[in-house]
Amino acid sequence: MAEAPTATELRELLESRKIERVLFDYAHNLDINQPEEMTKLFTDDCVVTYAPNFGAEGKDAYRETLNGIGTYFSATTHHVSNVVIDFIDENTAQVRSVLMAIHRYTRERPDGWMFGQYHDTMVKGDNGQWQFKRRELRTTMGMDYHVKTSHPLGRAE
Amino acid sequence: MAEAPTATELRELLESRKIERVLFDYAHNLDINQPEEMTKLFTDDCVVTYAPNFGAEGKDAYRETLNGIGTYFSATTHHVSNVVIDFIDENTAQVRSVLMAIHRYTRERPDGWMFGQYHDTMVKGDNGQWQFKRRELRTTMGMDYHVKTSHPLGRAE
Amino acid sequence: MAEAPTATELRELLESRKIERVLFDYAHNLDINQPEEMTKLFTDDCVVTYAPNFGAEGKDAYRETLNGIGTYFSATTHHVSNVVIDFIDENTAQVRSVLMAIHRYTRERPDGWMFGQYHDTMVKGDNGQWQFKRRELRTTMGMDYHVKTSHPLGRAE
Repeated sequence: MAEAPTATELRELLESRKIERVLFDYAHNLDINQPEEMTKLFTDDCVVTYAPNFGAEGKDAYRETLNGIGTYFSATTHHVSNVVIDFIDENTAQVRSVLMAIHRYTRERPDGWMFGQYHDTMVKGDNGQWQFKRRELRTTMGMDYHVKTSHPLGRAE
Repeated sequence: MAEAPTATELRELLESRKIERVLFDYAHNLDINQPEEMTKLFTDDCVVTYAPNFGAEGKDAYRETLNGIGTYFSATTHHVSNVVIDFIDENTAQVRSVLMAIHRYTRERPDGWMFGQYHDTMVKGDNGQWQFKRRELRTTMGMDYHVKTSHPLGRAE
Repeated sequence: MAEAPTATELRELLESRKIERVLFDYAHNLDINQPEEMTKLFTDDCVVTYAPNFGAEGKDAYRETLNGIGTYFSATTHHVSNVVIDFIDENTAQVRSVLMAIHRYTRERPDGWMFGQYHDTMVKGDNGQWQFKRRELRTTMGMDYHVKTSHPLGRAE
């Protein structure tokens, strides 16, 4: 007969699904161009770094980096998979996921493809809602992508 | 010490995994060209809409829309991720997922790429099996895709 | 009120997440070129078959097939989704997942795209860790991919 999981194991299962949802809601709100909904997913003191010199410290600064989603892109699609979650404590988790993002530009130019990984630190607030405290994007490879700098994936030579 | 999840929370976790499986079995049976297995995943009174004027009402009509999978495509691959599930009640769930689908045609023409979202209403039958009661496909973007109409994603201007 | 899941159902939920993690750690260690970390995910008597005449029997032979990841590719990205898990018994599971893998070569040639499915037999060791006992890759389609043979997906004609 199967050994029953512990309360901690079950709690982490439940919280893992909630954490995944934040990742997917981020992608969704980005793809439907709802930057204000995106910022709600971040803590006030969040640190976001998409590439060297491309990111923000604090929710207000982050909000500004989202300006232009509506004018720069005519469509984007963010596919997030391979989600791995490690709980540091009950209210903190380290999350790794794999991203394929395709960007269709309003300007006449080829679609920009981007493949990479998100490395996130998520924290759970008093209201039970998980938020991004830190979001770092590492780049595996790209094609015709408009951002020319990147954080490396850390692939061994 | 972690608070133990409630019976309802655990039940929804369990049902979420079953619901995801229906989404993945749909993709699988489509990619291996088993339309009869696909129809089993739908309720008798299902509503399916892939695009304006491309869909079906009722399982029998839906079965007919699946004619041609074997002759029109030599291969397809459906990648479903970013699955988000909201339970309306114990036996009804609203599901959003992100799709990348690539179609290789039997006719000589470039592969058709399609990026979008499924918006599904799933219901649980007396046998405990979840089925699609409504499946709507919204299109984010495409490349060389043979279906020229689409439901919009609802991206803000 | 929701019926509480059984201990077996909860145990399988928990183990499913652990199994998924092995799939994702495989992809991760492949993409960051850590072959030794990959081999740890396989049993000593593992059988791996990526294509006819491309695979290995036993962990030592498998390790050799991983030679060249660092020299043949400058980058790879493995996107694993649509994970479906069937438990054969408490310590054995049959797993199906969908793969998109893109390979950037060190030689001057176009990126190689590969779409397929993994069919895995996973076993749980005495230490509670799941490992691949058998990993089979079936190919749906490819573009400019360097491996020219493949196991078929089993698509009906």
